[in-house]
Amino acid sequence: MNALGRHLLLELFDCDLDAINNVEAVKETLIEAAKRAQATIVDVVFHEFNPFGVSGVVVIAESHLSIHTWPEYRYAAVDIFSCGDALQPEVAACYLVEQFGAERTSVVEMQRGMFLRRTTPIVDKAAVAVS
Amino acid sequence: MNALGRHLLLELFDCDLDAINNVEAVKETLIEAAKRAQATIVDVVFHEFNPFGVSGVVVIAESHLSIHTWPEYRYAAVDIFSCGDALQPEVAACYLVEQFGAERTSVVEMQRGMFLRRTTPIVDKAAVAVS
Repeated sequence: MNALGRHLLLELFDCDLDAINNVEAVKETLIEAAKRAQATIVDVVFHEFNPFGVSGVVVIAESHLSIHTWPEYRYAAVDIFSCGDALQPEVAACYLVEQFGAERTSVVEMQRGMFLRRTTPIVDKAAVAVS
Repeated sequence: MNALGRHLLLELFDCDLDAINNVEAVKETLIEAAKRAQATIVDVVFHEFNPFGVSGVVVIAESHLSIHTWPEYRYAAVDIFSCGDALQPEVAACYLVEQFGAERTSVVEMQRGMFLRRTTPIVDKAAVAVS
């Protein structure tokens, strides 16, 4: 496929409540997932909501990982958007499923930026953040 | 549908090069899109890459908007992830298509966090960031 990006959409149900209810824990888990996927971390933003829930994004040179948790439903939505051949999004996905103790999961992969008629191969996006 | 979130995945092809190649311009456009969708902005992170491209996320109380641009292909991938009934992701999507001058677009909507057997209605995630 001549696509610029791969996008994994993870649905994590019946998660471990403690694992998805604490902003620091969720942040550390996402950062570790990014590292295990061989991503280059550029920025990290996480927020906790009242009364429940965590939202956060790990911006990586290869795109991003994001998460939104609904502890009251023991559910987390995770997106792993990546470009380039070096990154291993499946490694991050497996790690997150395990760490969040998700008992029921679904993963959908979308190709982003597909150029059907392009004959030359897609070149990786440069991985150096300048600002 | 008993879903916690709505997720629009926008593929924007043949964009206006100037509109997607400048980090400040892309940032302002995403922020304005979030405002027009009635979102409550919690955090904003944008980065420019060498030699091309912008990545950024607008974290909103209702989830997030993200963008990755490949000016060399005149392509941008946008995600609008929202929860709650108040937010109007379509308004943001239309604004972004117009502002980026995308001549060819595709939009896919995914339901996130669907509970098929749940009989009680889904309650909106609280919209107050506490950290």
